[in-house]
Amino acid sequence: MSSMGDRSVLSGWAATWSVDSADKSTRKMFDLGARLRRESTAPIYDLSLGNPHLEPPPLWRPELIRMLETEPAGQHRYMPNAGFPHVREFVAAREGQRFGLPVTADDVVMTVGAAGAMAIAFRSVLDAGDEVVVPAPYFPEYQHYCRVVDAKLVAVATHRDFSLDVAALERALGPRTRMVILNSPNNPTGALYPKTDLVALADALRRASVSRDRVLYVLEDSPYRDLVYDGTMASSILPHYDDAIHISSHSKDLGLAGERIGFALVSPRSRGRALLQRALAFANRVLGFVSAPALMQRVLPLVLGRPGGRVDAGIYGANAAAFVPELRALGFEVVEPRGGLFLFPRVPEAWIRHFGDRAGDAVVERLAERRTLVVPGSAFGAPEYVRIALCVESQEIEGALSAFRAVCGEGAGGGTG
Amino acid sequence: MSSMGDRSVLSGWAATWSVDSADKSTRKMFDLGARLRRESTAPIYDLSLGNPHLEPPPLWRPELIRMLETEPAGQHRYMPNAGFPHVREFVAAREGQRFGLPVTADDVVMTVGAAGAMAIAFRSVLDAGDEVVVPAPYFPEYQHYCRVVDAKLVAVATHRDFSLDVAALERALGPRTRMVILNSPNNPTGALYPKTDLVALADALRRASVSRDRVLYVLEDSPYRDLVYDGTMASSILPHYDDAIHISSHSKDLGLAGERIGFALVSPRSRGRALLQRALAFANRVLGFVSAPALMQRVLPLVLGRPGGRVDAGIYGANAAAFVPELRALGFEVVEPRGGLFLFPRVPEAWIRHFGDRAGDAVVERLAERRTLVVPGSAFGAPEYVRIALCVESQEIEGALSAFRAVCGEGAGGGTG
Repeated sequence: MSSMGDRSVLSGWAATWSVDSADKSTRKMFDLGARLRRESTAPIYDLSLGNPHLEPPPLWRPELIRMLETEPAGQHRYMPNAGFPHVREFVAAREGQRFGLPVTADDVVMTVGAAGAMAIAFRSVLDAGDEVVVPAPYFPEYQHYCRVVDAKLVAVATHRDFSLDVAALERALGPRTRMVILNSPNNPTGALYPKTDLVALADALRRASVSRDRVLYVLEDSPYRDLVYDGTMASSILPHYDDAIHISSHSKDLGLAGERIGFALVSPRSRGRALLQRALAFANRVLGFVSAPALMQRVLPLVLGRPGGRVDAGIYGANAAAFVPELRALGFEVVEPRGGLFLFPRVPEAWIRHFGDRAGDAVVERLAERRTLVVPGSAFGAPEYVRIALCVESQEIEGALSAFRAVCGEGAGGGTG
Repeated sequence: MSSMGDRSVLSGWAATWSVDSADKSTRKMFDLGARLRRESTAPIYDLSLGNPHLEPPPLWRPELIRMLETEPAGQHRYMPNAGFPHVREFVAAREGQRFGLPVTADDVVMTVGAAGAMAIAFRSVLDAGDEVVVPAPYFPEYQHYCRVVDAKLVAVATHRDFSLDVAALERALGPRTRMVILNSPNNPTGALYPKTDLVALADALRRASVSRDRVLYVLEDSPYRDLVYDGTMASSILPHYDDAIHISSHSKDLGLAGERIGFALVSPRSRGRALLQRALAFANRVLGFVSAPALMQRVLPLVLGRPGGRVDAGIYGANAAAFVPELRALGFEVVEPRGGLFLFPRVPEAWIRHFGDRAGDAVVERLAERRTLVVPGSAFGAPEYVRIALCVESQEIEGALSAFRAVCGEGAGGGTG
């Protein structure tokens, strides 16, 4: 049996996927960054992964320590799969106020980050063969989440300014459509969907529902909702459409991406509300999460909504503002992001003429030679674009802009490659 | 559409499962306990869920606090999906010593508890239709884990003393068998598989592998491995069989069930080792875990293997010793557990004659009337048994034993029902 190839040894699909998807993965850039760091001590300007660089807010650490120093027994054991009741009550009250809806603790399931919430929501409502409609460009992990449950992702292009094309979305709603994902502020584009567009989409979904015998869900994946640059609140579809699940995490507003804390919230107006609550908690259990980490659940009510209880998200807007005019001067087409962690510029026309569908990749490769890492738009189905993460220090922006200037100065026909 | 039933609203499988499986779920007992607590303040003797009641060991809290007080920036961000490199190196060194194998950091993936490790291991090596052989009685969540990946669980009875029936296991290895799960010390039986049985099983697996073109994996699910009552080390099959994945967690030895920290370890001798490492990390990402919680990863090297760095597991053995003679005197057949959190006695013959396949359920129901909660053996495919969790205080044992005495005194024909 020593002649067995790796592929025949491991026919489980994760093995196959991990090979197939490695090339275009955002994570590849993360690993490349690690390698560049090992190879040389020269600075690297890593604007690839949306790894929030802001530290947890000032209140978080002392509150966590105080909690640990004063807690009664029994705080680190198993709890109900949906999470600690008092934490769910806190989240329900806070979110109910946000949405203007009577959210209860039963509507809330605490999760292993937003990704864990996506996993349980997908399992709870999707059958094999169901279609999931997503405005494009979109977070590429959605493809994997669909494959896990044998659902089919249907991408629908947004307008050139990355706003929702509601008419196109409505046309995409077929007989097997089960879910529409909304992600605002958006990864990778930074687009923020205004209330008017959400109301129009809700109307379209209701029209499409008339002749159906299954509910059409909206899954609102909102990890960046508290990172709107002008300080306003991101609009939600929940007040306008009943069959919705809202998902968020504290990876960004509390800078806790590695600690894995988020939640899923069932709209209190959704049909099958009680069954959906149970399904989410059950999926949290049998998919292997069991529950969200106890410590991170318990610290939330001590921090959220209090002074010093969130990161200063203004830095992301400031970073975007530093990039936009410089990139435009270099010939990039830039839609100014309204929130979130990313900038998604279209590379200069000369590169698109020269490289066609490899234009974004070419810019990325040329930047990497100058130790500057960004993600090619091809990873998001938009090969003429690159994604720039804004969670970086100002000296990294300067270094990255130098690399952009050098690469653009060489032109599409230049470079060392 | 208001006439839609809940079932048609939610056709995703988690919704269906959450209904279908609720009756026999261990979690049902957990929820029943919560209800009994709300209804009356009279004591409840809850021996249903294996919720480790021991507090984290003395070293854990001060080390965690010290870590929080002195940590540099950047400790709560995303890290590689497999976990922090220095933590994986620590685990690899420790486990390599345990198994006598050259385990490296690359072989280790830090996970959201043992359940999270099971989820990624199942996805990494199982295809739809594959068979998973499990000695019975077994942890019923395995059924769900199999359904998640469309695999089929094949239960193989153990001997009457719950030891492995290696011949029966060998007969069960069919052309679609892809994996054998070992769980020692066992949930629910407390059986500990000796090295001789593991060597015999390894030989059987090698014999069965001769004519196969796919690897036959052993998945060693060992969350109770450090809870052996006589203080010896639980034997592992890893030194004796190469294509193995070892899984454990710190829910029990560190009392951190709610904090979700565990790991999966690829045997360094396994075929396709590198691909398997990548598959596990990739599954950790796309199944929604992303990574194990950062804080709990980082605290492990500060605590494990140091004085005051583990719970006193002797208490579980003492609790078992308190139950065994009393239950035997009441007519229960009891195989003395060697480790773990559970006791799995067979109910007295009179009850089996009276209730047949409902004997265990009947005892459970009669105990619940006396506010004592245990899990029916039917949940484990062994309807003549009940499972008693040993993670309780001594006054709970006394209360529970009083209930057992009263129920048995009434006899199978008695009770209020």
